[in-house]
Amino acid sequence: MAVYTHLGAEALARLIDEYAVGRLVSAKGIAEGVSNSNWLIETDWRGSTRFILTVYESRTEVSELPFFLGLLDHLAARGCPVPATIKTREGAQTVTVPAPDGTVRAAALIEFLPGVSVSEPGPALAHAVGAALARVHLAAADFPLRRADALGPSAWPGLAQACTAEGLAQLDPALGPLIDDALGEVARRWPGALPAGIIHADLFPDNVLARGDAVTGLIDFYFAGNGLLAYDLAVTHAAWCFNADGARFRPEVSAALLAGYDALRPLTPAERAALPQLARGACLRFLLTRAFDWLNTPASALVTRKDPRSFARRLALYGEAGEGLFAGA
Amino acid sequence: MAVYTHLGAEALARLIDEYAVGRLVSAKGIAEGVSNSNWLIETDWRGSTRFILTVYESRTEVSELPFFLGLLDHLAARGCPVPATIKTREGAQTVTVPAPDGTVRAAALIEFLPGVSVSEPGPALAHAVGAALARVHLAAADFPLRRADALGPSAWPGLAQACTAEGLAQLDPALGPLIDDALGEVARRWPGALPAGIIHADLFPDNVLARGDAVTGLIDFYFAGNGLLAYDLAVTHAAWCFNADGARFRPEVSAALLAGYDALRPLTPAERAALPQLARGACLRFLLTRAFDWLNTPASALVTRKDPRSFARRLALYGEAGEGLFAGA
Repeated sequence: MAVYTHLGAEALARLIDEYAVGRLVSAKGIAEGVSNSNWLIETDWRGSTRFILTVYESRTEVSELPFFLGLLDHLAARGCPVPATIKTREGAQTVTVPAPDGTVRAAALIEFLPGVSVSEPGPALAHAVGAALARVHLAAADFPLRRADALGPSAWPGLAQACTAEGLAQLDPALGPLIDDALGEVARRWPGALPAGIIHADLFPDNVLARGDAVTGLIDFYFAGNGLLAYDLAVTHAAWCFNADGARFRPEVSAALLAGYDALRPLTPAERAALPQLARGACLRFLLTRAFDWLNTPASALVTRKDPRSFARRLALYGEAGEGLFAGA
Repeated sequence: MAVYTHLGAEALARLIDEYAVGRLVSAKGIAEGVSNSNWLIETDWRGSTRFILTVYESRTEVSELPFFLGLLDHLAARGCPVPATIKTREGAQTVTVPAPDGTVRAAALIEFLPGVSVSEPGPALAHAVGAALARVHLAAADFPLRRADALGPSAWPGLAQACTAEGLAQLDPALGPLIDDALGEVARRWPGALPAGIIHADLFPDNVLARGDAVTGLIDFYFAGNGLLAYDLAVTHAAWCFNADGARFRPEVSAALLAGYDALRPLTPAERAALPQLARGACLRFLLTRAFDWLNTPASALVTRKDPRSFARRLALYGEAGEGLFAGA
């Protein structure tokens, strides 16, 4: 959550003028997105229309933008609640803006979607999110581009090494053994032959906009890539079905999420059987990336560090309760 | 520019429900305001209405909110382009929200105003801003509350001490002598008997919203207080009439700003004569607070530190050119 690139009103107005969307009326830098700069823009198009302007900072590979932005348009065209991108007058998907370091950054204008991100969602919203995720999986089936999930299972051993045993021990002495154990399990029995396709891979409540119990937007597809569809459901399960510190499982949210997904894209028996294993993998992924970020973010930075231990607790709970946490699936 | 207090959608919805403004549709934390947390809120009132929600962090004295918020309402009711505050269903000006440290914070809901802040404003906008400032001075004449300008002339010697001679020397060896000289000048001949009233005291281009050359909003009145009206014009002159690094005076912007002000509230001969002196005081004020903030903000913080030397340059230019910079006033 930050605005890294400074853009004055004159620069913003020139940028908006590259699009046929009217003239700039208002622009507010918003605290959204972890590694990009975002503005909520209003123009006088059709009276008043809002957009999100994203300037891609160094952590996003510009070469991957056609995948991310093309995926949004592909899904939006098929009725998924995701923001479509706006094309410039010349038909381009991105524009460039000057960066503070003298280089240029890529930027994209996308639809503004209403809705708020719920911190502790209930079963009704979880059901709607399950359905929305299934809809994305089905709609992306004929998306022509591919992208390896850079934070998928093959990346986890390297992430654990990058955290270093000393770093992990400093966070919590129990983390190292827990991670070693989970890495071993993934190496031995990660399910290989399940239905695969495009996955969001990060569908936390933060990345879902809602009005009441209706999903108005799925956002932040910048971790999307090719992977196992049931793994994406397991990521969403791990993200939605516990309280904030990961200590308490919420069975009614779990049952609703799984039922919502299953209603649109019924899980195969093999997917169903693999869910506990996939969920442990999902916990390992977030445990590792949060531990790495924790160890590499100065405590004084205004970026909120997320406690990796809440995913250590989830990992343990999925191990202990196994299939019990997927009752109703 | 920061969002310090975290408020989840549920907490925001409960807060909005204290007002008769419809239900929460969207909420984005915005990177605006130096020391408070701000959200751009949308509700379904009259279809769609936007507001700014401000949560006051520790730097704002809660006891001073009736002054700041009352002033906004007073000015808005008299046609000044400032956001009016929204009252709760029970008629309260502020509500409380839980803070991360277990205490509560005061929060206020105010009107959203369209417009963008121009980085390098031209003469036409400067003329409109001069007129808007004069309108504020006239409209505030019967505002019943008082507040001492905490960063007025009597505060400057203490601010200089707080920076310490070593700190200033570390920033730039020329700063210490320049500040001592200016402090002596203020002590000897600060004009005392000029028209006084409520002043904004911080009307930088950042705090003006505009569409084209029309002013749509004057914002951020959290430095407002009682002071000399011509000093407020001098602050605005110092803030608007130079390029960003303070090295180049922009005479056409100066002439337009002064003419815009004078058209609505003609300066007295004594005010006119005092402008160079008041402008040197204004430069000293921003030089001192920026030097203090620079010396007390870690370089790693995401808050942008503002270079104090750009006001050292302005201070020198006002000293050299004197009345020449106020030609047309």
